[in-house]
Amino acid sequence: MKQVAVVGGGLVGSGWAIVFARAGIPVRFFDANEDIRQTAPSCIRASLSDMREFGLIDDVDIVAQRIDVVDSLVDAVAAADYVQESVFERLDVKKAVCAEIGAAIRDDAVVGSSSSGIPASIFTEHAPRRSRFLIAHPVNPPHLVPLVELVPAPWTDPEIVPWLRAAMEQLGQVPIVVNREIEGFILNRLQGALLNEAWALFDAGLASVADIDRTIAHGLGLRWSFMGPFETIDLNAPGGVEDYAQRLGPLYHTIAEARRDPKPWSPEMIERVTAERRAELPKQDLRARSAWRDRRLMAFVSHKQHQPI
Amino acid sequence: MKQVAVVGGGLVGSGWAIVFARAGIPVRFFDANEDIRQTAPSCIRASLSDMREFGLIDDVDIVAQRIDVVDSLVDAVAAADYVQESVFERLDVKKAVCAEIGAAIRDDAVVGSSSSGIPASIFTEHAPRRSRFLIAHPVNPPHLVPLVELVPAPWTDPEIVPWLRAAMEQLGQVPIVVNREIEGFILNRLQGALLNEAWALFDAGLASVADIDRTIAHGLGLRWSFMGPFETIDLNAPGGVEDYAQRLGPLYHTIAEARRDPKPWSPEMIERVTAERRAELPKQDLRARSAWRDRRLMAFVSHKQHQPI
Repeated sequence: MKQVAVVGGGLVGSGWAIVFARAGIPVRFFDANEDIRQTAPSCIRASLSDMREFGLIDDVDIVAQRIDVVDSLVDAVAAADYVQESVFERLDVKKAVCAEIGAAIRDDAVVGSSSSGIPASIFTEHAPRRSRFLIAHPVNPPHLVPLVELVPAPWTDPEIVPWLRAAMEQLGQVPIVVNREIEGFILNRLQGALLNEAWALFDAGLASVADIDRTIAHGLGLRWSFMGPFETIDLNAPGGVEDYAQRLGPLYHTIAEARRDPKPWSPEMIERVTAERRAELPKQDLRARSAWRDRRLMAFVSHKQHQPI
Repeated sequence: MKQVAVVGGGLVGSGWAIVFARAGIPVRFFDANEDIRQTAPSCIRASLSDMREFGLIDDVDIVAQRIDVVDSLVDAVAAADYVQESVFERLDVKKAVCAEIGAAIRDDAVVGSSSSGIPASIFTEHAPRRSRFLIAHPVNPPHLVPLVELVPAPWTDPEIVPWLRAAMEQLGQVPIVVNREIEGFILNRLQGALLNEAWALFDAGLASVADIDRTIAHGLGLRWSFMGPFETIDLNAPGGVEDYAQRLGPLYHTIAEARRDPKPWSPEMIERVTAERRAELPKQDLRARSAWRDRRLMAFVSHKQHQPI
């Protein structure tokens, strides 16, 4: 990657611009909304200042200067070897912008979409140069949480996935490969499985929202902050994952069997969960709590960088 | 809590002894196996030294001296106001030891069982003073991961749960209440839901074991290390959990619908997962990696103690 374009300048696009610029790569940054083009540089600077404070970058100016906000999509993508598409996640919006991007890029450019659950084949089928598109789904915000899901469409050029995986690693991200398209990819399917069980337990009156949250934040989440679920169980039985699976597989199968008839999150359930959350955190404090979350994340990322792998 | 007994001196029991002793409470520690009674003090001292190194306790000797290894169960529990039962998790073993404990305790003592998934009603039904028993399930190791699930049996004296919740909080643990018995309680049901989805995604050839692990360790697990799943989604949409649930509920319902016919972890699947894990970490390195995990946990717990709540 020598020249990158970011198309779509919300929180995700701004985070991506930081990821590339932090690694020394010039970024051309475009959003169709002029207000966003005006305000993005100061939002990006604010994030960079926070990162500086937590020791995650050395110099705000050096990174910020690598990001050029430009006034047209063509100007942003024409010379890029990589384009990160991060526009609003609605099918018509994605389709339109991918058509524009496909028409304007070099033949050998690669376009990664930040789509969090819609597979690329749904919105790139009729795009020019569609073989250059795939999903590169980050976690929000991408400059703090390094995971990126790479998901090719059936027509994605097979050389792209290994190239992008290596490039993302060089940027300091942690890419994974989803071998074929599936709704929700890996990340949101894992999140969904946990959420669905959490909602079902709450719905059955087994525990409060706050106590279910504590089970993760003060229990399971500690190990998962540096080890995945397979490594966790591999280290949780003397004989490794095989030993663990033989002992506990039947329990987990029983748990799955109990969820053969999943209920949607009904309006009544949503109301009850909302009531417990709002008792814990009033609506007017959501924004302040999000700022707290971001600072906790930065402190944690800084901590993590100093640990042995 | 003024005098505590720990019955069962393996890793879990030893961790519990540290939890109580660290908080200044004298502990009488018993295991039926004489070898364990001989070796437990040095194992506990080794853990305490590690904790001292990471700034989690001030003085090894002061904490260690509060733990008395005794030679009989009756001697351990007779004067205790709280007994933590941590024997091997097999029904016949639990039943036998609960009968012994129930016969030897004071009328007003409370007995918490470390059982990780078997409800107390299954093994305390015929124990003397059965109304004094409940589940107090920790995460391993309890002196590093603070979560404790309190699960009453139908006959547990109703005053015990609020008393033990407050007492556990005073010890520095994070207790949650499971309102009635369910297999796997809350923690292992949440873990099971995530694991079942992870196994299914791997089985379908969608991603490698290592890439599924990365999705948690470098993605979802970062936020879950200090926030539960409900708070995470509450902060992930401008209008809070209600807003989030309306947008993404249908996706998560689709994910649940796809798992209506859960497969057990078959021997063939276990073999494939094992092969990928052993390629990542040879069997002879399991023990060293577990030591790495414990040190990572200690570093993380120390980091967490310095963060604003």
